[in-house]
Amino acid sequence: MRKKVINDPVYGFIKLQGDLIFRVIEHPYFQRLRRIKQLGVSDYVYPGALHTRFHHALGASHLMKNTLDSLREKGHNITPIEYESTILAILLHDIGHGPLSHALEYSLLNKVNHEQLSSLLIHKLNVEFEGELQTTIAIFEGTHPKQFLHQLVSSQLDIDRLDYLNRDSFFTGVTEGTVGAERIIKMFDVVDNQLVVEEKGIYSVENFLNSRRLMYWQVYFHKTSISVETMIVQAIKRAKYLIKNNIEIFTTKNLKPFFCNNIDIELFKTEEQYIDSFTQLDDVDIWMCIKEWQYENDIVLSLLSKAILNRKLFKTIIYNEKPDEKILLVIKETIKETYALSDEEVEYLVISNTISNEAYVATKNNILIHTKTGELIDISDASDLPNIKSISQVVNKHVISYLK
Amino acid sequence: MRKKVINDPVYGFIKLQGDLIFRVIEHPYFQRLRRIKQLGVSDYVYPGALHTRFHHALGASHLMKNTLDSLREKGHNITPIEYESTILAILLHDIGHGPLSHALEYSLLNKVNHEQLSSLLIHKLNVEFEGELQTTIAIFEGTHPKQFLHQLVSSQLDIDRLDYLNRDSFFTGVTEGTVGAERIIKMFDVVDNQLVVEEKGIYSVENFLNSRRLMYWQVYFHKTSISVETMIVQAIKRAKYLIKNNIEIFTTKNLKPFFCNNIDIELFKTEEQYIDSFTQLDDVDIWMCIKEWQYENDIVLSLLSKAILNRKLFKTIIYNEKPDEKILLVIKETIKETYALSDEEVEYLVISNTISNEAYVATKNNILIHTKTGELIDISDASDLPNIKSISQVVNKHVISYLK
Amino acid sequence: MRKKVINDPVYGFIKLQGDLIFRVIEHPYFQRLRRIKQLGVSDYVYPGALHTRFHHALGASHLMKNTLDSLREKGHNITPIEYESTILAILLHDIGHGPLSHALEYSLLNKVNHEQLSSLLIHKLNVEFEGELQTTIAIFEGTHPKQFLHQLVSSQLDIDRLDYLNRDSFFTGVTEGTVGAERIIKMFDVVDNQLVVEEKGIYSVENFLNSRRLMYWQVYFHKTSISVETMIVQAIKRAKYLIKNNIEIFTTKNLKPFFCNNIDIELFKTEEQYIDSFTQLDDVDIWMCIKEWQYENDIVLSLLSKAILNRKLFKTIIYNEKPDEKILLVIKETIKETYALSDEEVEYLVISNTISNEAYVATKNNILIHTKTGELIDISDASDLPNIKSISQVVNKHVISYLK
Amino acid sequence: MRKKVINDPVYGFIKLQGDLIFRVIEHPYFQRLRRIKQLGVSDYVYPGALHTRFHHALGASHLMKNTLDSLREKGHNITPIEYESTILAILLHDIGHGPLSHALEYSLLNKVNHEQLSSLLIHKLNVEFEGELQTTIAIFEGTHPKQFLHQLVSSQLDIDRLDYLNRDSFFTGVTEGTVGAERIIKMFDVVDNQLVVEEKGIYSVENFLNSRRLMYWQVYFHKTSISVETMIVQAIKRAKYLIKNNIEIFTTKNLKPFFCNNIDIELFKTEEQYIDSFTQLDDVDIWMCIKEWQYENDIVLSLLSKAILNRKLFKTIIYNEKPDEKILLVIKETIKETYALSDEEVEYLVISNTISNEAYVATKNNILIHTKTGELIDISDASDLPNIKSISQVVNKHVISYLK
Repeated sequence: MRKKVINDPVYGFIKLQGDLIFRVIEHPYFQRLRRIKQLGVSDYVYPGALHTRFHHALGASHLMKNTLDSLREKGHNITPIEYESTILAILLHDIGHGPLSHALEYSLLNKVNHEQLSSLLIHKLNVEFEGELQTTIAIFEGTHPKQFLHQLVSSQLDIDRLDYLNRDSFFTGVTEGTVGAERIIKMFDVVDNQLVVEEKGIYSVENFLNSRRLMYWQVYFHKTSISVETMIVQAIKRAKYLIKNNIEIFTTKNLKPFFCNNIDIELFKTEEQYIDSFTQLDDVDIWMCIKEWQYENDIVLSLLSKAILNRKLFKTIIYNEKPDEKILLVIKETIKETYALSDEEVEYLVISNTISNEAYVATKNNILIHTKTGELIDISDASDLPNIKSISQVVNKHVISYLK
Repeated sequence: MRKKVINDPVYGFIKLQGDLIFRVIEHPYFQRLRRIKQLGVSDYVYPGALHTRFHHALGASHLMKNTLDSLREKGHNITPIEYESTILAILLHDIGHGPLSHALEYSLLNKVNHEQLSSLLIHKLNVEFEGELQTTIAIFEGTHPKQFLHQLVSSQLDIDRLDYLNRDSFFTGVTEGTVGAERIIKMFDVVDNQLVVEEKGIYSVENFLNSRRLMYWQVYFHKTSISVETMIVQAIKRAKYLIKNNIEIFTTKNLKPFFCNNIDIELFKTEEQYIDSFTQLDDVDIWMCIKEWQYENDIVLSLLSKAILNRKLFKTIIYNEKPDEKILLVIKETIKETYALSDEEVEYLVISNTISNEAYVATKNNILIHTKTGELIDISDASDLPNIKSISQVVNKHVISYLK
Repeated sequence: MRKKVINDPVYGFIKLQGDLIFRVIEHPYFQRLRRIKQLGVSDYVYPGALHTRFHHALGASHLMKNTLDSLREKGHNITPIEYESTILAILLHDIGHGPLSHALEYSLLNKVNHEQLSSLLIHKLNVEFEGELQTTIAIFEGTHPKQFLHQLVSSQLDIDRLDYLNRDSFFTGVTEGTVGAERIIKMFDVVDNQLVVEEKGIYSVENFLNSRRLMYWQVYFHKTSISVETMIVQAIKRAKYLIKNNIEIFTTKNLKPFFCNNIDIELFKTEEQYIDSFTQLDDVDIWMCIKEWQYENDIVLSLLSKAILNRKLFKTIIYNEKPDEKILLVIKETIKETYALSDEEVEYLVISNTISNEAYVATKNNILIHTKTGELIDISDASDLPNIKSISQVVNKHVISYLK
Repeated sequence: MRKKVINDPVYGFIKLQGDLIFRVIEHPYFQRLRRIKQLGVSDYVYPGALHTRFHHALGASHLMKNTLDSLREKGHNITPIEYESTILAILLHDIGHGPLSHALEYSLLNKVNHEQLSSLLIHKLNVEFEGELQTTIAIFEGTHPKQFLHQLVSSQLDIDRLDYLNRDSFFTGVTEGTVGAERIIKMFDVVDNQLVVEEKGIYSVENFLNSRRLMYWQVYFHKTSISVETMIVQAIKRAKYLIKNNIEIFTTKNLKPFFCNNIDIELFKTEEQYIDSFTQLDDVDIWMCIKEWQYENDIVLSLLSKAILNRKLFKTIIYNEKPDEKILLVIKETIKETYALSDEEVEYLVISNTISNEAYVATKNNILIHTKTGELIDISDASDLPNIKSISQVVNKHVISYLK
């Protein structure tokens, strides 16, 4: 059986084992993740945050291995095929991400989210691997009878989150985001086919929820990241607009179809070529465009591109309450004048938006605590944690970003 | 000017500088802290938790230095004498701790807490150093006009807590307890003579409050620590009882006065000898007694001592609600029979107690946030942190510990 | 005065201060370093090794600041302008690096090394900043009277190496490469205008030399990195060849001049446009070419490009002795047949090379130890370190890389 | 099967498993190690260095478990009983250590080293555990046919050293001493029943040898540690002398026999009581004596004790060449006069000594490298490591320590 040990600054070493796992990792779909940064543009704020989705997937597979070993030691039956398939499911859970994923799902693509694409790609791989990923698919999609395996891959306290919080916290240097992943893993148990956490692990779970919330506001929704992301989204939108209007601009071979068409999930499913192009896309395509667009004649596109590259960023303001529309109008007028732009052009340079975060959703896929007396209760009902309830609500904030 | 660099696993290096600081550190009062563990008996659970009050004091002085440098850079005037005195105040803030301090304040001493003793000892040092600690005393006791200096030494978000949370978290290995001390320090500011935190630091402060709460339940109030501590307190009480009844048992030269008398703060102030003995006490005295008491004739004392040394610990149960008195009675009866003890003897082996923790007290010495709009608000009123309010209440738990 | 604190996973926080420093960092020349990875293709082996030259430069500036503060505390006079200029010199020391620098200096460029380009670019910046970088230039080039400032920037034990060893070790996860940078910095002193190390620091220096040697063999010359780097160099050479033969292939706007011309340092100095293009180049250009070259008609170029992207790497063998030429011939024959290639084409797919490393060069720019008795001796003459002599020799190894 | 997870700041978590292992750990012999610091008095220099032999033993058992798992994965047969016994052997390898072990083997005891005592105690435990430690003894003493298991417990590259170097480096904060333990473990293999290291691990082994040498000079033989240790040894010797001369001084119950007798290994074997006393001794006994001896009438003993406690340490000078005898005479005369001492008394206050270290011994129990071509060679013959030879020699240094 093939195996390999990989150095990981976060966990020390990651051990990979098993022929199918190696074939999946070596597949171009998976290798592509080497070229997609986990945190998109967060390195504009945190210069160490350059880790990739490839690295995250490997790290998550490491935690998953530890989890499955621990559950087996607690006496839960996990067959060899389930064991390997759960590891594969977590390895592949992000395979459908494109470059700058969250930002581009709504500009480059037509409302196609990465979960849909992950599913599509795993099915394609399954065909290529002649059905060897059948159990992986069942676990990934939640149709496998052992529900807890799916919950390990995707739930409010899953291995995905444990790894990305630790990894993002590590590479950004925001140490407060650290999560006691190994401890939580040892507290996982299975009751009535559900993934649960032993009661003595409640403070670790609370810490996990708080860390996640902190990372949202301090990292994922950092003003500077919002600025850069917004600017890139606007550049992409402008590029699409120009192309639709038959103005020739630079594009890469595989980005082109996405500039010329509004590709939704149906098109992905019916036209093979789009998946072929999509699975060649990575951060390089986006950045190359931005680099070449500096020299385009369109003022909006070149202005945005130069500003992104040289870090002359949009000013971003975050409001707790929705700001008055007039503010936007005033800003737009000023920019129009300063840069001699048309009404249509200025729309790319002044953006209003909403960001929202929910630290814990108590109404579905709850995190279950297994009390010492044998009951299963929702984490937000644990008497020791009065504060979970208070963070179980959507927090919306309002954002304005504009050219300075 | 004397200076020295000390390796610290937590911060890398600690730099000590200044003649007075050196004289204080070299004083036997301060060197004694080398022999008093910060976490008492927590190494029974977390074998790495052997760090001392000496190490904590040095670590806190390091953070204090960074804090004062940062405040000066923000334009706040801190004179050289205030600078040095604030560092001295944090170095000396725990000088009045005895061995296993919290546990023994109510058994070895007669309701004398370590703050009172710290104050007493700093005053004595001030006499010895011919008034050089005058400003230190003012800062320590809160009478210095620059209130924020006192708040750095002692408040709900002080340098003491920043260091001990990080240090305890580091040496126990409970990584979730880590606090972004350096970040909080950079967010400190002074407004109206009050220590405040810049608004963008609120998540770090929240993380600090949550970490502290987590450390309470996971470390400071860990069941095993409670067991060992309770056993030691009972052994001390038994020893005092025997000595009062003229039964000769082993004691160390400097513990003796505390076994023979009920020393309260007044006695400390009036009789020099008690301070002299107290400032010679450390963990060694307690552990030596326990080691020698194994061989005493008194069954309670020898039984407790052997059990402590060989880690045959009391069973400890923590209840959210006060348990029925009957439970205690049943346990006592069983133990009396098993060990053929008298009613009076069994009282040392079955203990009921209360522990309580308040993550944040919103009614005094509040943590103040300086908002971007210039207001000062209490952290629990920050709209982004709905959960602070929910943790701003005393949580009481009930404990029963008894011989298995 | 502007200042900013940046999270760095390696050192916790990096503090930037000073208007000129900010203007330099914000300059597009410097921002470009965000897009150039410090270790080129090492992430093919160590997936965390994605840190950039930008990050390294900031990290080095942090260590430099600490060093200058320490030297000042030891009583050495460093004027404010020298202080700032030394920090600027280390910030800018790598400004002349191109993408995949070491590999491409001899293929993309015509024997132009990055030191020459750094010098050129700093002079250009100096013009732009109206002479404000004059002292920086003097320190960088070694013409400033305070020689030790230059030695801090560039010598066998300089701040550059201290940072990159620690940083590379951190992000690769090769913890054995860690260097006691802070300790060495505290041991630095100046005697007779020379940078020296206090005698009690000799083991730290030895550890530094050994770590560096270890990093060479374990990371910088890792077989897999050599394979990828070789493949990219071959692809670049093939592209140049094709372009020279008027075969049109994809290239980026700013790479084009380097494919069409053999640009040496003279050309850089005389033709402004080359510097303009060069300062727009980064990793994105290289990777975009490789991505697009997959679809070129030239079999060599497309084969190399696909193999690089999908990690079907050259087999690389490292020999202590120069291997027999016949081996190469046999390999070439096999590949020619398998892929139906011409003699000329196969040359791009079978490469022989030499790598060499010298852990310490005792004959120039020695590391000087300041003994307790006041002498200055070369580190390799320190009686406690008999082994330094044995590593003071060039170690050459021979490499063969070829398509599998 | 009993199991437990323990937080360890060095490795994160240590997993203990197996009933016999639990019974051994819970035995008073093993619990005693909780009260014996691994590094004796090194916390006088490195305040974090308070970790115990208990913690080291657990840490080593963790690395051993990983090693055995890795060797099994490489196809080597290790039976369940061998597996458990090798873990037990490493857990128990230091069971014979007394307080301040190395220092007191030649003053408190009569040339009894801890290896002899470990062996003795394991045999006693084996009787108590009715033969369950038979295989453990065979592995510990090297009589088990699988030699490599013994080599893992005790050789020039054993698990003991891997753990203590990492642990000592961690708690002292001397990060340069860090060793790539996990990497070395993965490079371990077994050839011809011998423990060997795969060729690609040679730089890690070299780094291990260098780290060990560095730790010797920077930590284990630090001047300040030598001073404190010397002072304690002298205090013990003085105490023994006084007791032999019928002068009553404080002693603890279990130290007494060692002050009154010259106990050699034979006496340990024949008189049960000495082992009983020895297995009750720990750091507390030594420190309690020193604390009480402050008040003794004997000037030498009280002077030494006060000086140790208040850190008024001997001056220690380390010479590469043996210093002239006259130096000692001059120092002695000065001290005699200053303190009005007799010739006999001054001998306790001026000490000359030799320390020696051998980084690698090439003549026995060599570290074997398994080359890619299948040969077994000594690490010092590896062509890539010319420097191992140069450190394969005993380095002797000469020490003078005396009262200032």
